[in-house]
Amino acid sequence: MDVVDYATTLNTLTVGLDTVWVLFTAFLVFFMNLGFAMVESGLCRSKNAVNILAKNFIVFALASISYWVIGWGLMFGNGNPFVGLTNLLFANGGVDEGFDAISWTQVPLWAKFLFQLVFAGTAATIVSGAVAERIKFLSFIVFAVVLVGLMYPVSGHWIWGGGWLQTLGFWDFAGSTVVHSVGGWAALAGVIILGPRLGKYRADGTVNPIMGHNMALVTLGGLVLWFGWFGFNPGSTMGVGDGSAIAHIAVTTNTAAATAIVSATVAAWIMLGKPDLSMIINGALAGLVAITAGCAFVSVPGAAIIGAVAGVLVVLAVPTFDRFKLDDPVGALSVHLVNGIWGTLAVGLFAIDGIAGNATGNGLFAGGGLTLLAHQAVGVVAVGAFTFAIAFAVWSVLKLTVGVRVTREEELGGLDRGEHGAEAYAGFQIID
Amino acid sequence: MDVVDYATTLNTLTVGLDTVWVLFTAFLVFFMNLGFAMVESGLCRSKNAVNILAKNFIVFALASISYWVIGWGLMFGNGNPFVGLTNLLFANGGVDEGFDAISWTQVPLWAKFLFQLVFAGTAATIVSGAVAERIKFLSFIVFAVVLVGLMYPVSGHWIWGGGWLQTLGFWDFAGSTVVHSVGGWAALAGVIILGPRLGKYRADGTVNPIMGHNMALVTLGGLVLWFGWFGFNPGSTMGVGDGSAIAHIAVTTNTAAATAIVSATVAAWIMLGKPDLSMIINGALAGLVAITAGCAFVSVPGAAIIGAVAGVLVVLAVPTFDRFKLDDPVGALSVHLVNGIWGTLAVGLFAIDGIAGNATGNGLFAGGGLTLLAHQAVGVVAVGAFTFAIAFAVWSVLKLTVGVRVTREEELGGLDRGEHGAEAYAGFQIID
Amino acid sequence: MDVVDYATTLNTLTVGLDTVWVLFTAFLVFFMNLGFAMVESGLCRSKNAVNILAKNFIVFALASISYWVIGWGLMFGNGNPFVGLTNLLFANGGVDEGFDAISWTQVPLWAKFLFQLVFAGTAATIVSGAVAERIKFLSFIVFAVVLVGLMYPVSGHWIWGGGWLQTLGFWDFAGSTVVHSVGGWAALAGVIILGPRLGKYRADGTVNPIMGHNMALVTLGGLVLWFGWFGFNPGSTMGVGDGSAIAHIAVTTNTAAATAIVSATVAAWIMLGKPDLSMIINGALAGLVAITAGCAFVSVPGAAIIGAVAGVLVVLAVPTFDRFKLDDPVGALSVHLVNGIWGTLAVGLFAIDGIAGNATGNGLFAGGGLTLLAHQAVGVVAVGAFTFAIAFAVWSVLKLTVGVRVTREEELGGLDRGEHGAEAYAGFQIID
Repeated sequence: MDVVDYATTLNTLTVGLDTVWVLFTAFLVFFMNLGFAMVESGLCRSKNAVNILAKNFIVFALASISYWVIGWGLMFGNGNPFVGLTNLLFANGGVDEGFDAISWTQVPLWAKFLFQLVFAGTAATIVSGAVAERIKFLSFIVFAVVLVGLMYPVSGHWIWGGGWLQTLGFWDFAGSTVVHSVGGWAALAGVIILGPRLGKYRADGTVNPIMGHNMALVTLGGLVLWFGWFGFNPGSTMGVGDGSAIAHIAVTTNTAAATAIVSATVAAWIMLGKPDLSMIINGALAGLVAITAGCAFVSVPGAAIIGAVAGVLVVLAVPTFDRFKLDDPVGALSVHLVNGIWGTLAVGLFAIDGIAGNATGNGLFAGGGLTLLAHQAVGVVAVGAFTFAIAFAVWSVLKLTVGVRVTREEELGGLDRGEHGAEAYAGFQIID
Repeated sequence: MDVVDYATTLNTLTVGLDTVWVLFTAFLVFFMNLGFAMVESGLCRSKNAVNILAKNFIVFALASISYWVIGWGLMFGNGNPFVGLTNLLFANGGVDEGFDAISWTQVPLWAKFLFQLVFAGTAATIVSGAVAERIKFLSFIVFAVVLVGLMYPVSGHWIWGGGWLQTLGFWDFAGSTVVHSVGGWAALAGVIILGPRLGKYRADGTVNPIMGHNMALVTLGGLVLWFGWFGFNPGSTMGVGDGSAIAHIAVTTNTAAATAIVSATVAAWIMLGKPDLSMIINGALAGLVAITAGCAFVSVPGAAIIGAVAGVLVVLAVPTFDRFKLDDPVGALSVHLVNGIWGTLAVGLFAIDGIAGNATGNGLFAGGGLTLLAHQAVGVVAVGAFTFAIAFAVWSVLKLTVGVRVTREEELGGLDRGEHGAEAYAGFQIID
Repeated sequence: MDVVDYATTLNTLTVGLDTVWVLFTAFLVFFMNLGFAMVESGLCRSKNAVNILAKNFIVFALASISYWVIGWGLMFGNGNPFVGLTNLLFANGGVDEGFDAISWTQVPLWAKFLFQLVFAGTAATIVSGAVAERIKFLSFIVFAVVLVGLMYPVSGHWIWGGGWLQTLGFWDFAGSTVVHSVGGWAALAGVIILGPRLGKYRADGTVNPIMGHNMALVTLGGLVLWFGWFGFNPGSTMGVGDGSAIAHIAVTTNTAAATAIVSATVAAWIMLGKPDLSMIINGALAGLVAITAGCAFVSVPGAAIIGAVAGVLVVLAVPTFDRFKLDDPVGALSVHLVNGIWGTLAVGLFAIDGIAGNATGNGLFAGGGLTLLAHQAVGVVAVGAFTFAIAFAVWSVLKLTVGVRVTREEELGGLDRGEHGAEAYAGFQIID
């Protein structure tokens, strides 16, 4: 073996290792579809379980197609600061170049595509939970296609595709904003357009709690999501050039989940008088969402604080949305929107320049002043305004055309019978 | 470090990386046992759930032992074009050589063994679903041992073990035929010998649909299987020498699943008037089975077409089997047999020489004429005839000896009470 | 690229590959939390499901914090033969050195930490099942924090942290003793202090079997645990320097599970007259626990024997504990304590020097005499005495302070209503 062979072998090995890492973590993120399906269906009533399961099963298929056909090019294709313009609708026949914004990772193009696709799919599943138990199957499908194919890629281009927010110095390592708050804003628009489930809010303004039908599924889903997040955050290195950074990210991610669980448990115990299981699980998800932006930029103690705050935020947010009669059956807004925002801003507070190879500059608490925090706030506002406005428009068009809400009879009788002619638990005696 | 050290280190790294990849993907394929257990039990009635769960739990244990003792040597051992003959029943004391057909991958022997074992186990789990709700526990166990130890390895030897079909130029990258249609043919023989469940077909010839008892489990299982398929197909490279090929395979696999889900949903919506969840999930599995043979040989658009056809095929196949009173509670024949055949033939249509390092030659649609398609058809017929005939004989012997079917009383009362003295959901009120 | 670059690149690749392996397997072990949650909740009654799920969800969060704050330093920090003393309560501000006992693996410190953390978490989840259906939520939480933060790390230090048992020549590759029997001893103390569930033992001394409420969850959990064990055992190499050894470990692990399932099925069929599903699943876990100590030290046939014995042991142990009125709702003592001991001793019987790079010396059956077996017995007794004594003291203090057992009313009405104000399956008709 001569020197040329060594160089070739080393390069093959390096690309091979990076590809294994990116694919492995992409598969974990794909697996989060199971987590969302179980959390969302478990927290709803059994009469709507088939509907929610079907939505969650089909949504990734739709995402796979729409992101392939147009979303990927809009997000990562070369273009302008606002949108990518490469190979849209296969205009250039599936070229292997023209994606400069993601050329920093050396893995094969299809590996990059798959990793980004599973992220795009996540945004759509977030919406699914918030609009559950009253949305028409068809209008959810159409919205999901538009979200993944057209909306998500545009704001994603701003931040990860070489767009204006990336140029500005806005940092979101694994997607507190790109994925989670985008899903949250889109969901919020849907919740407003749809209105609350029948019977959720009483005439006197009080809340009628609607219990989930299967807490085992919710717990299962929560643990699957936590597991999947080990792909979501550490995988966002999209390569193994710095093993230390990856290990650091895995630990910040886990630590934020842990402190969020504890703080959410304590907060719920104080506020509700009991350690509420759905709050414990949503606490974990809140911590994970919040650390997603900063997992590679903050220290482990910093992650612990970010998570602890997230756990309290989610417990406070749930009744707050209820106060505004924003009916979110699974707490998706409290988890993904509120903590997507918190996690993005937290980068401006806790970032430590140079940690795990970080180049954000210092956040406020590390002596970096308000610059980074201001950039983060700009991104939060810009992405929020864009996503909420477009989502509101799309939901409104759907309302005027195919309609967004099932009939009163279908809602009362359950979407499973009305929309699918099926029941989730045949043979079981169930009372509503 | 001198030049010799470099070469050694590079070799250690290369084998290490390949081993990590093969083990990781083997674990994912192992995990498909969970997917099958949940899909199959969920689609049956609760009174038979313990029985199905027990079958699915024990079947991989039986596979592990019988494949170790004899199957592995029959399949990959050096021998003749029809069967391998190395170390059968430990005749040579566990030799590390004599498996030339699988020496193309450099991973350690036990890694090869484990990866092939989890594939062999899959074939047996396919049978489990088709014969559910009326088979005797003991006769399923015996059949599974024979299938994994003796039948599967022989046809597998023809295709992957250096046998006559491999020599002919029959291509099956990850096992549409080797695993899925073999499982399907074995199941078909079982379904015929067993006859339909009591009450499935009415005297007037119409079908009495028997609803699954837990669609959350079915959805869970479907997503676990999809997840596991990222091991099944990309892992079949059994090495990381070409990262691009692996990424390509991951994307063809996912794309076929996606288009199959959409086409199955649309087809079911048209035929049944509703988007049926079990059809959506079986659509995904159909697409995955169909792309298994060609995932490394076809383009991503080719995969999209293969999947789209698979999704329609499964929706058409389910009522077709019912028309012949072939009672398959979970749709295993429609998924694994029909689409195993379709996927194998599709290689002859869509293969593109040179794509992802492919050496099949071109299929019909890529200008390669009918040669490849003819070879694929020969393999489909030969493996089908062999497996169905032997399986029919084995089931027949079982019927004459231990018996294959539980008593009428046990079937009506549920196999859980009859065969296991247990119930799956103690405390729940259930009506049949 | 000159020679220095080669060396650097090779080192980066080697550390990168090892890091990917350690993190990947750590994630799998983390996922075992799901397995434990499902097995434990499924084997209990639905009225206590929320409580068990909540315990299993929060316990890893508590473990993450207490192991970070103190446990890691006690276990792997430099100190004396009895305890580590590095960076306790962050005394040294998170130093990157002072952990010589685990410097044999070159992965980044946080990767080592995370891998060890997920093992520590497992010990606590073992306790959860044995004390289920009557323990106070708060006292379980406190006990788990003490176990993971203070008890587990001390005995772990003896064996893996450079302590006196490691010096003596006691071998436990992946933790049959370090993790499983420690969890088992701690659980035994809890079971004794708590007493049996109301109604489990009749006045005439006979056992009133209490059926689990969801065998699908139990099966799901069992398969998730089996899947996770592919991280637990092979991952304990904490590096990919010897791919052959890793593949060997994966196969010994799987083979022991397989033979244990078969032997447990047969034993249960003989003793109980039926193939009992919970015994089949506990058989798998018993085999996995038993092979954990020796997976890298014994041959594949040796593993098969160890597993086969484990499967019988678990079937015999369950009624034995009942004879002593030690009420263990999920069989955790039979699985983790009994087979943790058996697996540890089995190293002294079946170890083969040099296999898979093994340096234990030969066990009794490989001609090594009684030395190794004697060392193993010393470890079993020492760790058992230490853990049981401390655990008994901690449980006793909890009993005298916050109390360990819920009230009779709460126990009869279910811990879900009493402790959490919730129900697991809202809407389902359930009779106790």
